[in-house]
Amino acid sequence: MNKPVDPENAPGPTESLDWLSPYFLGSYAENDELLEKVLVEFLRDHVYWRRNFHPEDTPPISVLAQHGPDYREFVARMKSELHGLSARLKQSVPFFNPRYIGHMASDLLLPGLIGQMITTLYNPNNVTDEAANVTLEMELEVGRQLAAMFGFSTDPASRPCAWGHVTSGGTLANYEALWYFRAARFWPLTARQATVEAELDPGVLDGLDGAFVKADPARLFNLSLDQVIRLRRQLYEWMGTSLSPAQARALARAIEAGRIESLGEAGFHNAHPELGQPVVMVPVTAHYSWEKALKLLGLGSANLVTVGVTERMRMDPDALHAALARAHDQGRPVLAVIGVLGTTEYGSIDPIHEIVSARQRWRKKGLDFAIHVDAAWGGYLSSLFRAADGSLVGHGELKKKFKYFPGESVYKAFAAVRHSDSVTVDPHKLGYVPFGCGAYVARNRGLTDFITQKAAYVFEGSEESGPVNYERRFRNLGQYILEGSKPGAAATAAWITHRVLPLNQDHFGRLCAGTVHNCEYFFEHLDELRTRLKGTARVILPFEPDSNLVCLAINPEGNRSLAAMNAFGRRIYERISATSAGDIRTREFFGSRTLVDRSALNPETAARLCDELGLDPASFTENVADPETQSDRIFLLRHTLMNPWLTGKDRGLNYLDRYCRHLETLIGQAIGNGQ
Amino acid sequence: MNKPVDPENAPGPTESLDWLSPYFLGSYAENDELLEKVLVEFLRDHVYWRRNFHPEDTPPISVLAQHGPDYREFVARMKSELHGLSARLKQSVPFFNPRYIGHMASDLLLPGLIGQMITTLYNPNNVTDEAANVTLEMELEVGRQLAAMFGFSTDPASRPCAWGHVTSGGTLANYEALWYFRAARFWPLTARQATVEAELDPGVLDGLDGAFVKADPARLFNLSLDQVIRLRRQLYEWMGTSLSPAQARALARAIEAGRIESLGEAGFHNAHPELGQPVVMVPVTAHYSWEKALKLLGLGSANLVTVGVTERMRMDPDALHAALARAHDQGRPVLAVIGVLGTTEYGSIDPIHEIVSARQRWRKKGLDFAIHVDAAWGGYLSSLFRAADGSLVGHGELKKKFKYFPGESVYKAFAAVRHSDSVTVDPHKLGYVPFGCGAYVARNRGLTDFITQKAAYVFEGSEESGPVNYERRFRNLGQYILEGSKPGAAATAAWITHRVLPLNQDHFGRLCAGTVHNCEYFFEHLDELRTRLKGTARVILPFEPDSNLVCLAINPEGNRSLAAMNAFGRRIYERISATSAGDIRTREFFGSRTLVDRSALNPETAARLCDELGLDPASFTENVADPETQSDRIFLLRHTLMNPWLTGKDRGLNYLDRYCRHLETLIGQAIGNGQ
Repeated sequence: MNKPVDPENAPGPTESLDWLSPYFLGSYAENDELLEKVLVEFLRDHVYWRRNFHPEDTPPISVLAQHGPDYREFVARMKSELHGLSARLKQSVPFFNPRYIGHMASDLLLPGLIGQMITTLYNPNNVTDEAANVTLEMELEVGRQLAAMFGFSTDPASRPCAWGHVTSGGTLANYEALWYFRAARFWPLTARQATVEAELDPGVLDGLDGAFVKADPARLFNLSLDQVIRLRRQLYEWMGTSLSPAQARALARAIEAGRIESLGEAGFHNAHPELGQPVVMVPVTAHYSWEKALKLLGLGSANLVTVGVTERMRMDPDALHAALARAHDQGRPVLAVIGVLGTTEYGSIDPIHEIVSARQRWRKKGLDFAIHVDAAWGGYLSSLFRAADGSLVGHGELKKKFKYFPGESVYKAFAAVRHSDSVTVDPHKLGYVPFGCGAYVARNRGLTDFITQKAAYVFEGSEESGPVNYERRFRNLGQYILEGSKPGAAATAAWITHRVLPLNQDHFGRLCAGTVHNCEYFFEHLDELRTRLKGTARVILPFEPDSNLVCLAINPEGNRSLAAMNAFGRRIYERISATSAGDIRTREFFGSRTLVDRSALNPETAARLCDELGLDPASFTENVADPETQSDRIFLLRHTLMNPWLTGKDRGLNYLDRYCRHLETLIGQAIGNGQ
Repeated sequence: MNKPVDPENAPGPTESLDWLSPYFLGSYAENDELLEKVLVEFLRDHVYWRRNFHPEDTPPISVLAQHGPDYREFVARMKSELHGLSARLKQSVPFFNPRYIGHMASDLLLPGLIGQMITTLYNPNNVTDEAANVTLEMELEVGRQLAAMFGFSTDPASRPCAWGHVTSGGTLANYEALWYFRAARFWPLTARQATVEAELDPGVLDGLDGAFVKADPARLFNLSLDQVIRLRRQLYEWMGTSLSPAQARALARAIEAGRIESLGEAGFHNAHPELGQPVVMVPVTAHYSWEKALKLLGLGSANLVTVGVTERMRMDPDALHAALARAHDQGRPVLAVIGVLGTTEYGSIDPIHEIVSARQRWRKKGLDFAIHVDAAWGGYLSSLFRAADGSLVGHGELKKKFKYFPGESVYKAFAAVRHSDSVTVDPHKLGYVPFGCGAYVARNRGLTDFITQKAAYVFEGSEESGPVNYERRFRNLGQYILEGSKPGAAATAAWITHRVLPLNQDHFGRLCAGTVHNCEYFFEHLDELRTRLKGTARVILPFEPDSNLVCLAINPEGNRSLAAMNAFGRRIYERISATSAGDIRTREFFGSRTLVDRSALNPETAARLCDELGLDPASFTENVADPETQSDRIFLLRHTLMNPWLTGKDRGLNYLDRYCRHLETLIGQAIGNGQ
């Protein structure tokens, strides 16, 4: 973290947390009455709703039924199984508790939890408005709420206008981003080829200097997404006005037939040998779903270019530049560059602004790429940067709330998200809604022009012949997304959360600020732990935290071997891991762990870590000769500080202090056992 | 449907439905007290569980908090928004009611509904056991429960042993099936190439007549999945015993680098030009997610071969044979043949047994393919075919329960699912659990050997060097599936449903039988409607139903034009559609609709439909010259008869009778308006 701005006056982890009281059920289930009362109220509301649909119908279930032996037997069986379920669930890891600082899970915001439960009773299916006449609209509103948080325009009159929808999780949203990029970016090549083969000439189209039919493939691939969307509209307008219906239909058919979606990756690249295999660039810290994405889409994981990171574990702009230059030299098209807003392992914030400005520079050289921001984790932190009126909060104003956050790069990164093409964000992570709720948001809803499972053969009367009615289009949501059936209840959870806590600094942002305060508190108080452990063990933060995740490396004093340090770390982890616990209830704290590959670090960072930890630099190597002493990766304890009650001045020793004490004990014990 | 077996003694739609009484909340919410009581009981159980984790901690939320103005304001805001949500939800389509016979939605089984709600309080994330130490195991058990229902072995000692898991829906399961097939089937080619390039020779491997290194690509692609799995194990065993660790590592690395997952579709096919682009075969009636799948995976929708269907809308074995012969002649590898067990539009059951026997025949000619059964809709009907001891119920025994079901082909199809390689099934459809719960089941869990996001570089101490511990592997479930974070609550809903109602004919099967009885009842009583409408309109079943979906075509008497008939059908549909209703509460019934393309029908079926409907055969044509009279598709009303209370003898006129009366009224009105 950078130098403090105004440590005396900054609000922070020592403020009262009373304001949080009604948000969650609570670690002691303090709000049990509230939850039960509201839930039962709306359960009954649902019950009486059922009775108001054709009340004249005789109820199919007899009032006497419950006294029959079959009925009683079924209920007994159900209750017995539910008891069994409940008994097993009680072995669950207590994510809700501030003693849990492991993975990205915490307590659930009450509005979303209740909203989801109520909606489940109605069981809408957000694949089409016929199966979700109410909640589909809410899902699209979630898309707009999130889009506005990222700074995209959601005004239908504006070009571009953003849209978004809920996915089962961030992984699906990541797939979808690439699916959309591919569909749009290869389109102009196919359209040109079909037009040329039909011996037609629409003249000059958007983004091109000369005739469309003369444009070369590299130029057509390196149009911006906005240009591709406009180019397609122009071409279809021209087809509608200048061609006969039969000609237009034939051309539309030929275009569809030549698309990469139709021919497949192999067939398309065979047909366009002049175009190299496209690459996708991600920081080396990116989530493993990106590798999965390239495998799934048939793009090939070998075409995933991992870009090096700085010692803050942020994508290194120089490394990006070098990777782009390499692609340029090799004539490889760049499908997309992915920036991560809050990496899964370190919470680090990639410099999205640097990716945006790299694009501006490279565009001039004829190399364009789509930008996707994987904000599965950090997306909701954007609410901190958004004023109630939707404007960006100034850096100076924002810094007043924190001691360190946000540094220059972090601030610029969040501010630049609005220049990206699409974003992944997980309401089920920092949105504090139940699992099964991710989201995909695109800056330009025109991207959906390139995705439909229906053939475009019906030319007249279709969307092609006039302005697209996106509202009507998205009523058939399943046509424009990867998933089919999907729960309206998940969308509702996010929707009502954003209604009760709008996505700006005054509402949702306050919750996010709390998590950053936790991190700043932990960051500052580690010094005390370090002092107490002096001469026993070295505890370091390998990377200064950007947001609300903190990793620690621990090395017993005097140990020079990374392999031994890793083994030591694993022994500590055994004592805070959820899976190794015999009885979960006896655990004091829960953490998680991660590994950093030597190959992911630059030599300076690797050397610095060894130095700070007192390790022999030769023991941290990509080429392990002696596994007894060497390793190609560092074992770290990893802490997600999203529970809002980790700190707070008014209810005794806070949980981060306690965790530090506990860690001290574990370190002492581990050293004792190791002797 | 075929001729009745024993109409007098067959149980059926006129039996008492009292046994069903405790299963659902009910259309009048008759079981409101039961639901509320049990839900509150387990909600409180959760509350007190929270208090038993470190009870010594001071509760972070003060008991006085609820009296503060901030607290009251938040609660007011939350309640106000929840009221708004509830108000909007009351415009929902009443899927729970027997008056809803549109899409695949109905009331929810209480155990699953309650189980899901309870589990949501614990909010596990089934991506890894660290985030779901309880419910991940339940998800794997759901996989075993479903696998056993399909007749797969789930005994870990058996080879193959099945496995399965929950997905967000059937669409994802369909993607996953192809993802697995591709990963496995191209593997031997890559492995051979890498072995040859390393100048190594493991000798003869499973499924091959001669040396592995001499095997030709077509032979290697046309191994069965079981052979590929064994071949890989043999090769790795040989590498572990006959090569030095460095050699083995190098070969493993080379294999990984040459895989289609690594090179991408284009790169791989470039490297193996001798192999044609693979095709995937589906019946023309298959769900649109298959086209999406081929686009998503980079396989190309042009490589989706749609196989013609019989007049029952089942995949035509002759057409399949012809398609396979074509692929064989063209040297195109067949990645998979998909059979549908219960098509989305018609509920028709593809002859899975014919696909299986076609594979046996074609294997002899050197053409092999994987078989996937898309049983998203009809999968749960398999419970009817399964005795409590897990054995297949005999056809004769099963037929006794029905008048027509199951015909010879349908019976054989269900019995043959166990010979397929994988199955998609949706608990959120005929499993009556809330949306967001699909499933993928594979006959041989060895398929997962081909999927991992971790590089196989670490050779020693890895799974490769000894028998794979699948139980341990699947604790990192996210590594072996397409999704990342996913709700444990969805898995629990299916799990407890299967516990309370085991997937055999005596338990879950009884519910499924009821839906088939509905269909048989509707099928038989349509005659009455037809008689009453004589001289007014013709009502036909275009295709005899295979399961529990029924489509109707309606033509006003004397009309000869398909275009006019379709317009008429749309006017009827307007009156039973969920989206065109002003006030949903005034709707009498809800149905859905579908369109059958002329291109999907053989000439005989098209001619028969025109004849039965009294249409001019020239008005049903693929080449529409006059849109005023002609059309290339037929508009049908579509009815999903899954609500268990559609019929039943003991509580007044049943809903299917009422629907027929309503339809009669609507037809009369539409004819009146049309005049």
